[in-house]
Amino acid sequence: MAAPAVRYLQPYDPGHDLVALRRRFAAGGLVELGSNENPYGPAPRALAAAATALAELHRYPDPLGGDLKRALATKHGVDASQIILGNGSHELLMQLAQTFAGSGVDVVMSQFGFAVYAIAARAVGANLRVAPALPPEARMPRGHDLDAIAAAITPATRLVYLANPNNPTGTWFAADAFAAFLARMPGDTLVVVDEAYAETADAPDFASALSLLPAHRNLVVTRTFSKAYALAGLRVGYAIAHADVIGVLERLRESFNVNGVALAAAEAALGDDDWLRETLAANAAQRDTLAAALRERGWPVSPSQTNFLLVEFGEHVARVDQALLERGVVLRPMGGYGLPRCSRISVGNAAQNRALLAALDELASDSVLFSTDGQV
Amino acid sequence: MAAPAVRYLQPYDPGHDLVALRRRFAAGGLVELGSNENPYGPAPRALAAAATALAELHRYPDPLGGDLKRALATKHGVDASQIILGNGSHELLMQLAQTFAGSGVDVVMSQFGFAVYAIAARAVGANLRVAPALPPEARMPRGHDLDAIAAAITPATRLVYLANPNNPTGTWFAADAFAAFLARMPGDTLVVVDEAYAETADAPDFASALSLLPAHRNLVVTRTFSKAYALAGLRVGYAIAHADVIGVLERLRESFNVNGVALAAAEAALGDDDWLRETLAANAAQRDTLAAALRERGWPVSPSQTNFLLVEFGEHVARVDQALLERGVVLRPMGGYGLPRCSRISVGNAAQNRALLAALDELASDSVLFSTDGQV
Repeated sequence: MAAPAVRYLQPYDPGHDLVALRRRFAAGGLVELGSNENPYGPAPRALAAAATALAELHRYPDPLGGDLKRALATKHGVDASQIILGNGSHELLMQLAQTFAGSGVDVVMSQFGFAVYAIAARAVGANLRVAPALPPEARMPRGHDLDAIAAAITPATRLVYLANPNNPTGTWFAADAFAAFLARMPGDTLVVVDEAYAETADAPDFASALSLLPAHRNLVVTRTFSKAYALAGLRVGYAIAHADVIGVLERLRESFNVNGVALAAAEAALGDDDWLRETLAANAAQRDTLAAALRERGWPVSPSQTNFLLVEFGEHVARVDQALLERGVVLRPMGGYGLPRCSRISVGNAAQNRALLAALDELASDSVLFSTDGQV
Repeated sequence: MAAPAVRYLQPYDPGHDLVALRRRFAAGGLVELGSNENPYGPAPRALAAAATALAELHRYPDPLGGDLKRALATKHGVDASQIILGNGSHELLMQLAQTFAGSGVDVVMSQFGFAVYAIAARAVGANLRVAPALPPEARMPRGHDLDAIAAAITPATRLVYLANPNNPTGTWFAADAFAAFLARMPGDTLVVVDEAYAETADAPDFASALSLLPAHRNLVVTRTFSKAYALAGLRVGYAIAHADVIGVLERLRESFNVNGVALAAAEAALGDDDWLRETLAANAAQRDTLAAALRERGWPVSPSQTNFLLVEFGEHVARVDQALLERGVVLRPMGGYGLPRCSRISVGNAAQNRALLAALDELASDSVLFSTDGQV
């Protein structure tokens, strides 16, 4: 009875069952490094706004999300009519395919791109074209190859999903390379740049695609409050594009898709730039420290502009994952991404990263990491 | 560039801009009777659970919603595998069409049925067949005519949306009539019964469709925490059906579609039966009082098993709506539903209902309600 596109659809794999693990390990005892969350928690004024919003739970949220849209418009220097809010950017990524793709339409993404793009395309019966990623030995290992992606575009391509920086590789593409890529795109092909991790990026050659919006009606940038802003539990993301594109997306949006607590907390979070600077500085410092410590121990770590690291445990990956789980440290296995030799490790706070490294050192001394031929 | 189904889609009309009205009227000065919310607010233990959940806003919500599903399964005597959670039942109503309808498929609903059914069907390019409602002079004015709905079913019909009780008419259909209707349905036609207002129904001939689930694999019942449970601001609804149907729906569900505060508050709300009884008793008493007071003033009121009343202001409807707005009382105009002579009035608490009646009496004495020929 199901529509053809749904018959063989596989849902997104959210990783280990954290609820069960939290129950198994004592309160606060679980080191959760599997979901790329901000370990420092949200801005105090976001928390205060959320608490205030609890007094109005019996009311429907503002269906227009006007206050949050205006705050975002001011922040990004766009018009509020260029913004649509989502129940996380996940919802918007799905809705982009519902709105612009379908049977007979090609959707293009990169190998090792975020898993939701493929689900979004398949859910509407579109034909998914996956461009090969850069090789593991490239400067951006397994990152987006913009030339390969451009080559995968066909006359039937209405939608291209890019992530910058990309989850789960942590890699990014350079501002000038993307500008050149966008200039080559046909006008009827919508280019979606998922910037869920843009706030954590500080490399000199990284730039948000937002500055290219005025010149490109076919560009859509998605953002989220789940990562740097530490509001993953509330579900709020947004997309910015030409007002005409947003207007079409708005037709499919469910009127009350963003809950009232999320609207209030996200708006308040935008008002605390000092907090954002501090939380990003803490992430950047811990990211460098953790990457160096892992490399010191002999594990290859991809360059990252995000709040996570893609680490190659090679043939040890399943044993590392299992042994760390038993010690209360949660990583994200990457088998589902076609990276069975890698784990994705969120950058925790100093204590969490120390706990991770201590557990890894324990495995090494317990010989858990020695394969049958005695090689680490 | 948009998919054909999206090109002419009109989004759901959520009514007046309440955010602007709240700003215009002093704090608490607005009498909001336009959105069928529970004016008494959520259960104290739901509020407490929501406040506790704020400590984990930086974490993604449980993607399985396991605790809430188990609580719902216990409450309704079903298995947790028969339940899917939604970002409000709105999301599930949309997802049912995405999953089971599409181009070349017929979707059936009743005239004056909830507006989201038509949007859901049109959004996936399905062909919408609207069965005529019962006449205004019927025992259930403008209510679902189950015979007419059955007659609208074609071999291409995969989905029928019913509401019991129905929004915006407030009417309901009898348990035995629905059992007979369901028995006539082809096995490959999914019958969705939207029971958003089931908790407020206490008529002897009303029954939830839940008891028919064991015998009918093609039955889906949707519920929400937005009405009786007073959690509209958090967005959480659910559907119960055969585990196979739920399994297919789960493929399209976005993993973190229900936020963490909603999961916690909804689960806690289920644990407070005394509170639910009290809030429902208050609604029923106010519903009777308000309906009687409106009828006394000469306005026809439809029978209602919900927390709102459909009232016929006839030719006065626009003036009533506008004049009440100016006095800080918000109703929902029904022009968009093809009921330009009616308003939908949520049953408020005693003070809100008194304020509504006082404002209406003021209009009558100011002759606002007199038409050009001098008749009320």
